[in-house]
Amino acid sequence: MPPPVDHDEKRRAIARIAADLIAERGLEAATIRQVAAIAGYSTTVVTHYFANKRAMLLAAYRHAAQSTQERFDKLAEACAADPLSRLEILLPLDDEGRRAWRVYFQFWPMADHDPELAEEQRWWSANALSLARSALCQAYPAIDDIERKAAMALSALQGIAMQALFDPENWPASRQQDMWQAQASLLLKEQNMTTSGERTG
Amino acid sequence: MPPPVDHDEKRRAIARIAADLIAERGLEAATIRQVAAIAGYSTTVVTHYFANKRAMLLAAYRHAAQSTQERFDKLAEACAADPLSRLEILLPLDDEGRRAWRVYFQFWPMADHDPELAEEQRWWSANALSLARSALCQAYPAIDDIERKAAMALSALQGIAMQALFDPENWPASRQQDMWQAQASLLLKEQNMTTSGERTG
Repeated sequence: MPPPVDHDEKRRAIARIAADLIAERGLEAATIRQVAAIAGYSTTVVTHYFANKRAMLLAAYRHAAQSTQERFDKLAEACAADPLSRLEILLPLDDEGRRAWRVYFQFWPMADHDPELAEEQRWWSANALSLARSALCQAYPAIDDIERKAAMALSALQGIAMQALFDPENWPASRQQDMWQAQASLLLKEQNMTTSGERTG
Repeated sequence: MPPPVDHDEKRRAIARIAADLIAERGLEAATIRQVAAIAGYSTTVVTHYFANKRAMLLAAYRHAAQSTQERFDKLAEACAADPLSRLEILLPLDDEGRRAWRVYFQFWPMADHDPELAEEQRWWSANALSLARSALCQAYPAIDDIERKAAMALSALQGIAMQALFDPENWPASRQQDMWQAQASLLLKEQNMTTSGERTG
């Protein structure tokens, strides 16, 4: 299935404004009228792109997920970080990361009762799992039991993200990163032990 | 700080109905009128307990968190499971567990923009961390670096729960439990390695 991304530039610009508003004020408070005012368009133009609040929320969610993917791709292309550290882009380490998570928070309750939104969410969740899978493979090409380890890595990242969002004072970026690196090294240490066990066994 | 729990029986019974409705239909669809109809009270009685939707949501959240705590306590009192397995009660393994998580999902977006709700949430999050801490200590009395490991354990549990909720077909109870046990054994294996390293070092 192709990624559910928006390519139209104007649509993306409006989705970005919607994502900011939803993250900052919550879905209730983020109105199409406000999005239009900030974007400098009439509400007619905005409703041409997003007919209603649900469509606006979906676009904001997609924008947040797609932006995270693009940040990951940039790191990967530039080889700007080791494969495991690249996954840190999934954490709420900076304003951009926090914005994405706060949009997810607003999206989930509706997705929990809306099959189409739930499908979109599963797509991005599967995508995050594949990022974890490929990062672990790159970090340790001989890795075994990759499906389980990728799921454990993603669980750790999601759990760290949630704790950081609930309690930002106690979870600065450095602590989130330490926790993720500790988790990643546990997953790879298990690998080393298994491998050395096989060798000596 | 004492736990934010409701002791009034009638209030709890109504909160339970609210939690069910919120989990099944979402916060938007769960009205005070419906809660009253199911409870068999007038809306006047219900609004005596919960003046508005926000108060109803808080009561439902508190009920879900408190119920989870009570289930944990029962397991602990009966020594019905080893300490690490007791933490599985935090996962969405059955209807009761899924209900709790679906209420949390509805609660978070509002808590993200409401300091009092956020405070309540932090209380329960700290409480979950202390359950993880004490379970790890019981499972391995000589454990070191307990704060970090408890946070990693809780991250894993929260991440597993989220993946299971997003994709229930691929995450039956057995897979959630396997994943948690694998994570717990990684945390304790690190301990064993450190300890044996210290002995031989």
